Amino acid sequence: MSQARAIVCHDTHGDGGWKMEDVYVRKPKEGELLVEMVASGICHTDALVGSLAGGASPIAFYPRVLGHEGSGYVKEVGPNVTVAKPGDPVLLSFAFCDDCAVCKAGHKSHCNDFMPLNFGDVNRSFGSESGKEDIGGCFFGQSSFANLSIVQQCSVVNAKDLVKDKRELQLFAPLGCGVQTGSGTVVNAAQAGPEDSIVITGMGGVGLSAVMGAVVQGCKTIIGIDLVESRLDLAKEMGATHVINGGKLPDGKELADVVKEMTDGQGPTISIDTTGVPALTKGACAWTRNRGKVIQVGTSPFDFKLEIEVFSWMASGKQFIGAIEGQAYPKVSLQPIR
Amino acid sequence: MSQARAIVCHDTHGDGGWKMEDVYVRKPKEGELLVEMVASGICHTDALVGSLAGGASPIAFYPRVLGHEGSGYVKEVGPNVTVAKPGDPVLLSFAFCDDCAVCKAGHKSHCNDFMPLNFGDVNRSFGSESGKEDIGGCFFGQSSFANLSIVQQCSVVNAKDLVKDKRELQLFAPLGCGVQTGSGTVVNAAQAGPEDSIVITGMGGVGLSAVMGAVVQGCKTIIGIDLVESRLDLAKEMGATHVINGGKLPDGKELADVVKEMTDGQGPTISIDTTGVPALTKGACAWTRNRGKVIQVGTSPFDFKLEIEVFSWMASGKQFIGAIEGQAYPKVSLQPIR
Repeated sequence: MSQARAIVCHDTHGDGGWKMEDVYVRKPKEGELLVEMVASGICHTDALVGSLAGGASPIAFYPRVLGHEGSGYVKEVGPNVTVAKPGDPVLLSFAFCDDCAVCKAGHKSHCNDFMPLNFGDVNRSFGSESGKEDIGGCFFGQSSFANLSIVQQCSVVNAKDLVKDKRELQLFAPLGCGVQTGSGTVVNAAQAGPEDSIVITGMGGVGLSAVMGAVVQGCKTIIGIDLVESRLDLAKEMGATHVINGGKLPDGKELADVVKEMTDGQGPTISIDTTGVPALTKGACAWTRNRGKVIQVGTSPFDFKLEIEVFSWMASGKQFIGAIEGQAYPKVSLQPIR
Repeated sequence: MSQARAIVCHDTHGDGGWKMEDVYVRKPKEGELLVEMVASGICHTDALVGSLAGGASPIAFYPRVLGHEGSGYVKEVGPNVTVAKPGDPVLLSFAFCDDCAVCKAGHKSHCNDFMPLNFGDVNRSFGSESGKEDIGGCFFGQSSFANLSIVQQCSVVNAKDLVKDKRELQLFAPLGCGVQTGSGTVVNAAQAGPEDSIVITGMGGVGLSAVMGAVVQGCKTIIGIDLVESRLDLAKEMGATHVINGGKLPDGKELADVVKEMTDGQGPTISIDTTGVPALTKGACAWTRNRGKVIQVGTSPFDFKLEIEVFSWMASGKQFIGAIEGQAYPKVSLQPIR
């Protein structure tokens, strides 16, 4: 085993259960790599999972190491690893079985085993003492909140041709989750184009990446919504044609009114919610125009049930679409531009 | 005004309010045609609308003439009618404004004014006496339950190159609603292909047309579900690879179990409900595989609200899609095969 430093969650973040500490990491087994992390993004999903009471659901257990926007250099590989060799820079993304019908159809991010493989207690790759394997690892196949971590081969994109140095490798760490989720949703799930007007709720990493995706796709109207002014400024810088501060609406107007005004009174053709706030999902279902797409990307409260009036939904021709990881296949989506 | 015979709904069908009687029909105005009907299909939607208590909703009023799967010959045209001339055989479909953003984007069947134009009290083209215009017409732009009826130009497909005689014109009357709705849903809304396994609930005219659409698209598995054995026989004749009689399930099995068994344990990639039965819509949302499409075609009870658990829907990557009239544009979809 190798010595490592990791943020170990012994309990929820709220209860002070997250601790930076010395741990051990075991050797890579078949199809695994030992990766020395150089950076990791932090995602809402890390915070969410690390705030669940232990045992509250099959994905809520402690101790474990979270983190799933990692990048680093391969230190060692187990048997039958072909994706990279020691020394290669790698970008890390989600895990999938590559064997179920959904994976075989190319839809890796909705793998039948997505939940256990990415969130489950399936791989205790860390130990509190040498020889022990008592701390959960391989969160999203990687557990990047550690300077050394066991990573599943399916989670690895070889970045040899993508980055020129360590600094770039660090900057690109969130490509495999936040950036891919936002931009991939626009490209793959929404299949947006120049005729589309798109509303994106939440201007965090995912929402801003969706703005960038919409710019790349040439969407004619790109509306970013948030409560934080600095994020809205950034959204404009990224290419949003309009922004709305949901906390500073004009007197007597609802958010939906402002959205409609910005979309010729018709509502957008595409709405993407990156926040998981129920009111925004409901709002998007209402303000999106007929034949439009409402895409849920942000993690809603686990007990949130959306009520759809089926007759009027049928008449509207709208679509309510779930999307994880931008419905992207990282090895394909994270390609160098040649 | 011309004399005509029509089924006039004076009240709900249940209360004996539908009566075949002599009426008058006014002359065609701008953009209208007077059509001599040779046949009309009967759709669930006729029965549904004609069973609503008057005043219960904006689409519930009497007296009116229903019928929206008509075919006939043009007798007379109003000003600015270019679609057909007197003597032409015509197939009739739904009405749309052709002016809203949704129509302009090509999505005529989800026109912003679809409800008033097709269901509303907007055109009293019939009269109980000569000179009176006191009976609602232009249901779906046509009110085909009459031997002579005023038809909106947008509802007309010229069938000159589609049919060779009156008998064919009669047979094809339901093309513009039932047949188009079933087959169009498979082609346009589901965009089904050879890799798809498709479950269709309800083997009425719409469901059987969906089966035929799935055959044309080459879907590898086509499952028809109904309670009536003779319909299931017809479904097999049309090309269903499997049928299920929901009333005769094997001991201890639920419908979903049988559907899964027929789709490699994975569930179908596409489910289309043509019945409007809430349990079947809910069932389809559950049994459809990850990244699959659930398409609502049948009219559900107006008070039916589907509850979607948003987190698991997001993770599943599924789509819940509303579709009217197969998302077809009749002038395009009802083309002769050359």
